[in-house]
Amino acid sequence: MQFTAAQISVLLNGKIEGNADAMVSSFGKIEEAQLGQLTFFANPKYEDYLYTTNASIAIVNEGYELRQPVKPTLIRVQDAYSAFAQLLGKYQEMATQQLKGIQQPCFISSSAKLADDVYIGAFCYIGDNVKIESGTKIFPNSFIGDNVSIGRDCIIHPGVKIYHDCELNNQVIIHAGTVIGSDGFGFAPQADGSFKKVPQIGNVVIEDHVEIGANTTIDRATMGSTCIKAGAKLDNLIQIAHNVEVGNSTVIAAQAGVSGSTKIGNNVMIGGQAGLVGHIQIADGAKINAQSGVSKSIKDPYGAVTGSPAGDYTSALRSQAVFRNLPQLEKRIQELESIVKQLMAERLEQVTSSK
Amino acid sequence: MQFTAAQISVLLNGKIEGNADAMVSSFGKIEEAQLGQLTFFANPKYEDYLYTTNASIAIVNEGYELRQPVKPTLIRVQDAYSAFAQLLGKYQEMATQQLKGIQQPCFISSSAKLADDVYIGAFCYIGDNVKIESGTKIFPNSFIGDNVSIGRDCIIHPGVKIYHDCELNNQVIIHAGTVIGSDGFGFAPQADGSFKKVPQIGNVVIEDHVEIGANTTIDRATMGSTCIKAGAKLDNLIQIAHNVEVGNSTVIAAQAGVSGSTKIGNNVMIGGQAGLVGHIQIADGAKINAQSGVSKSIKDPYGAVTGSPAGDYTSALRSQAVFRNLPQLEKRIQELESIVKQLMAERLEQVTSSK
Amino acid sequence: MQFTAAQISVLLNGKIEGNADAMVSSFGKIEEAQLGQLTFFANPKYEDYLYTTNASIAIVNEGYELRQPVKPTLIRVQDAYSAFAQLLGKYQEMATQQLKGIQQPCFISSSAKLADDVYIGAFCYIGDNVKIESGTKIFPNSFIGDNVSIGRDCIIHPGVKIYHDCELNNQVIIHAGTVIGSDGFGFAPQADGSFKKVPQIGNVVIEDHVEIGANTTIDRATMGSTCIKAGAKLDNLIQIAHNVEVGNSTVIAAQAGVSGSTKIGNNVMIGGQAGLVGHIQIADGAKINAQSGVSKSIKDPYGAVTGSPAGDYTSALRSQAVFRNLPQLEKRIQELESIVKQLMAERLEQVTSSK
Repeated sequence: MQFTAAQISVLLNGKIEGNADAMVSSFGKIEEAQLGQLTFFANPKYEDYLYTTNASIAIVNEGYELRQPVKPTLIRVQDAYSAFAQLLGKYQEMATQQLKGIQQPCFISSSAKLADDVYIGAFCYIGDNVKIESGTKIFPNSFIGDNVSIGRDCIIHPGVKIYHDCELNNQVIIHAGTVIGSDGFGFAPQADGSFKKVPQIGNVVIEDHVEIGANTTIDRATMGSTCIKAGAKLDNLIQIAHNVEVGNSTVIAAQAGVSGSTKIGNNVMIGGQAGLVGHIQIADGAKINAQSGVSKSIKDPYGAVTGSPAGDYTSALRSQAVFRNLPQLEKRIQELESIVKQLMAERLEQVTSSK
Repeated sequence: MQFTAAQISVLLNGKIEGNADAMVSSFGKIEEAQLGQLTFFANPKYEDYLYTTNASIAIVNEGYELRQPVKPTLIRVQDAYSAFAQLLGKYQEMATQQLKGIQQPCFISSSAKLADDVYIGAFCYIGDNVKIESGTKIFPNSFIGDNVSIGRDCIIHPGVKIYHDCELNNQVIIHAGTVIGSDGFGFAPQADGSFKKVPQIGNVVIEDHVEIGANTTIDRATMGSTCIKAGAKLDNLIQIAHNVEVGNSTVIAAQAGVSGSTKIGNNVMIGGQAGLVGHIQIADGAKINAQSGVSKSIKDPYGAVTGSPAGDYTSALRSQAVFRNLPQLEKRIQELESIVKQLMAERLEQVTSSK
Repeated sequence: MQFTAAQISVLLNGKIEGNADAMVSSFGKIEEAQLGQLTFFANPKYEDYLYTTNASIAIVNEGYELRQPVKPTLIRVQDAYSAFAQLLGKYQEMATQQLKGIQQPCFISSSAKLADDVYIGAFCYIGDNVKIESGTKIFPNSFIGDNVSIGRDCIIHPGVKIYHDCELNNQVIIHAGTVIGSDGFGFAPQADGSFKKVPQIGNVVIEDHVEIGANTTIDRATMGSTCIKAGAKLDNLIQIAHNVEVGNSTVIAAQAGVSGSTKIGNNVMIGGQAGLVGHIQIADGAKINAQSGVSKSIKDPYGAVTGSPAGDYTSALRSQAVFRNLPQLEKRIQELESIVKQLMAERLEQVTSSK
C-alpha cells in the first residue's frame, strides 16, 4: 500500500510543507528511515537526525522551528508522536482487514456456526458446535475444540490451541502457540505413593479486549471457570493455573506464573518471572516486582512487594542493601567481639587484682 | 449426554430421595449449579448452598440430616466427594471414548503401523515406521516423527510435537504444544569463541501413566535416553534437559527447569519455577520449594530445600526471617559500636589518668 | 543405513583390528551398546566396559594398549572422541539430506519463491512473497508468514511459527514450537486505567548459524528489528522481548528472559531462568549466573554476576555465605548486647558508688 503526503495529511488533519506528492509505503525510526518511508520527530534528543534522514515524509510538531532545510516533506500536527501511533494503528487494521474467507484445506465441523466475514486459515481445526462471530480472524494451524465460542473481531494467531468448552468474548488477541484450557494440574495422592488424576471439567473464560502473548498456558478450572477479565494484558510464556482469576486491566509480564485458585484484582502489575502461590488474593492496583515469590495475600490496595519470599517493597530494598554488605557487617561483629573480649578480660583482671 | 437420577444412582450404588427421573447433562459447583446440572455436598462450609442450589441432582453423604426441604433430587452414598469424582472420571472417559478413526486430511506414512481403534485428528503428521497401539488418541495438528512408538490408551492433545525415535509407553497423557525429543543444548566451544553443535542422537523415553502439561519441552539425550519414569506428573512450561532422569511418581510444578544429566529420584516434589543445575542427584522423596535454585545434590531422602542457592528448608527459613530484619540488625550493631567506643574511650581516659 | 568397519575406517583414516566386515546401523554409549552398534572408548574411567561391551565396532585411541581380547572390531584413530563426534555429525547430515520436495497437503502462496531443493513438510503454511533458499528444510505444521525470507541450509523443526516480515539468514536451526515475530508487549496506559495497544510494526532478524531451542518466543520490534546475531545459541522456553539485541556467539540457557530494548554483547553467557530488565547493556563476555535478576547494565567486559538483584559474583557469594549463618550472627549480636549491657550496668554502679 502506498500513500502520498497529501493523503496522510488529510487523515491527520495536518499541514504540508514540501512536496505533497511524496510517496511512502512503510514506517521507519528517524535514525534509520529510508526513501519511501514515513517517520516522525518529537523527542529533541533526535533533532539532528531530522536533518540527515532519508525518509520521504516526516511528521513534526506544529510549533517546531526548522534550523535549516530538510529533505523529507513535513506534515505538521499538534502532537507528532500520537499522530504517528495513530497511523501505525490504521495501517495494521488495513493489513488485517483484507483477510477474509476460509483457506483450504481446513477442518470445520458441520455443526460449527461461523459468521460470514470470518477468516479461517489453512489447517485450522474447528470442532463441533463452535461459534465464531463477525470479524474474527483465526490464523493457520490453530485448533478450536468442541463447544468453544469466540466473539467479534478477535485475532487468533497461528498455532493456538483452545480446548473444548472455553469462551472468548470480543476483540481478544491471542498470539501464536498459546494453549487455552489444558487440564489443571490436579492429582490425588494414593496410599502407594502414586497419583490419580482429578478430572478437570471446568473451562476458561476470556473477556473483552484481553491480549495474551505467545506460548502462554492457561489451564481450565477443575469446576467452574479460570477467568481472565476485561482488558487484562498477558505477555509470553506465562502460566495461569486452574481456577485463577485475573482482574480487569491487570498486566502480567513474561514468564510469570500464578498457582491454582489465586484471585488477582484489577489494575495489578506483575513483573517478569514472578511467581504466586495458590489460594491467595491480590488487592487492586498491587505491584509485584519481577522475580518475586509471592507466598501470601496482598491485602493493601496499591501495595508493592519484591523478593522471594516477597516482602513489602521498601523494607525489602533496605534488607537487600544490607545483604550486599553482609561480609563487612560480619567483620564489624568480629571486631566488637574482640574488643568486648578484651574489656571482659581486663575486668576479670581488675576483679581478681582488687581481691 | 443426559442421565437420570435413577441411572446415576445405580452407577454409584446409592439411594434416591426425590424425583428419580430428574435429568442432568453436566456438572456444577454447589454454589453455581443450574437446572440440568449435577452437584455434590460434602464440606459443611457449603451447607447453606444445599438449600438454595438450582442443581437438578445433588449427591450427599448417607448420614447427613436435612434441616429443611431441598429442590434437587438427592442421591445418598457413603462418600459424596469420592462418588462425584468417580462420575467426573467416567464422564471424561465416555467423552473421549467416542473418538475413533482417522480424520482427513492427515499425513500417515505407509510404513506406520496403527492399531485399528486409534483416533488420529486432522492435520496430524505420522512419520515412517511409527507404531501406535490400541486405544490411543492423537488430537489434530500433532507431529509424530519417524520411528516413534506410542503404547496403549495414550492421549496426545493438539499441536504436540514428538521428534523421531522417542518412545511413549501406555496411558501417557501429553497436553497441547508440548515438545518431546528436541535436541539437547550441547555446543563445543571453538578456539575463535564460536560454538559447534554436538549432535544429539539419543531419544526420550516416557513410561506408563506419565502426564505432561502444555508447552513443556523435554530434550532428547546426547546418547542414550532422557527418561520420565512411570507415574511422574509434569505441569506446564517445564524444561527437562538432555539425559535427565525423572523418577517414579515424581511431581514437578509449572515453569521448573532441570539441567542436563541430573537424576531425580522417586516421589520427589519440585515446586514451580524451581531450577536444578546439571549432573546432580536428588534423593527419593525430596521436596524442593518453589523458585529454589538447587546447585548441588540432595543426598538425604525426604530432605527439603528452599532458596536460591537452595539450602536446608528449616535453616533457610530462619535466615530469611533474619534477612527481613537486617536493617534493624545493622542498627543494633551501630549502637553496640557507639557504646563500645565510649567504653574504650573511658578506659583510655582511666589508663591515662591513672598514670 | 548400514556401514562396515572398513567403510568407517576409510572415513576416519583409521586402522582396523578385527573383522573389517562387522556391520553397524546406529550408535551407543560403551556401557549400553548392543550388537549392530558403534561405540567409542576414550575416558579411562570407562575402560572396563571395553571388555564387556556388545558393540560391533569400537573406536579407540591409537596408543591404547589392550589388557585382554575384546569382542568388537576396533578402529584406531588419533582422537577417539573427536572421530566419534565427527561420525555423529555426518550421520545426522545424511539423515536430513534425504529430505527434499514438498509433502502434500501444503499451503504455498503463488507469490512465494522457493529454491528447487527445499523440503516443505505436510501442513506447512507459506505466505505471500516468502523467499526460501537452497537446502532449507521446513518440517510439518509450520507457519511462515507473509514476506518472510529464509536463507540457505536452515532447519525449521515442526510447528514453528514465524510472523510476517521476519528474516532468517543461513544455516539457522529453530526447534519445534518456537514463535518468531509475535507482537512486542507494548501498551499505553489510558486515563481510565485501561491500556491501548501500541502497534508493533518492526520485525525479527536472525543471523547465520544461530540455533534456537523449542517453545522459545522472540518478539518483533516496535519499529526496527529485534536481532539475534551470528552464532548465538538459545535454549528452550526463552523469552526475548521487542527490540532486544543478542550478540555474536552469545549463549542463553533455558527459561531465561530478556526485557525490551536490552542490548547483549558478544560471547555473553546467560544461565537458566535468569532475567534481565529492559533498556540495559551487557558487556562482551559477561557471565550471568542462573536465576540472576539483572537490574542494571554490566559495563565490565567478562564481568560475572549472580543473585536477584544481581551483584558482582564474588561479593554476592560472600554475602550468600553469611546469609546462611544469619541466625548465628544474630545470636552473636545478642550475646554482645547482653555483655555490653552488663558492662554498662557495672560502670553505672562504679560511677554511682564512686560518688
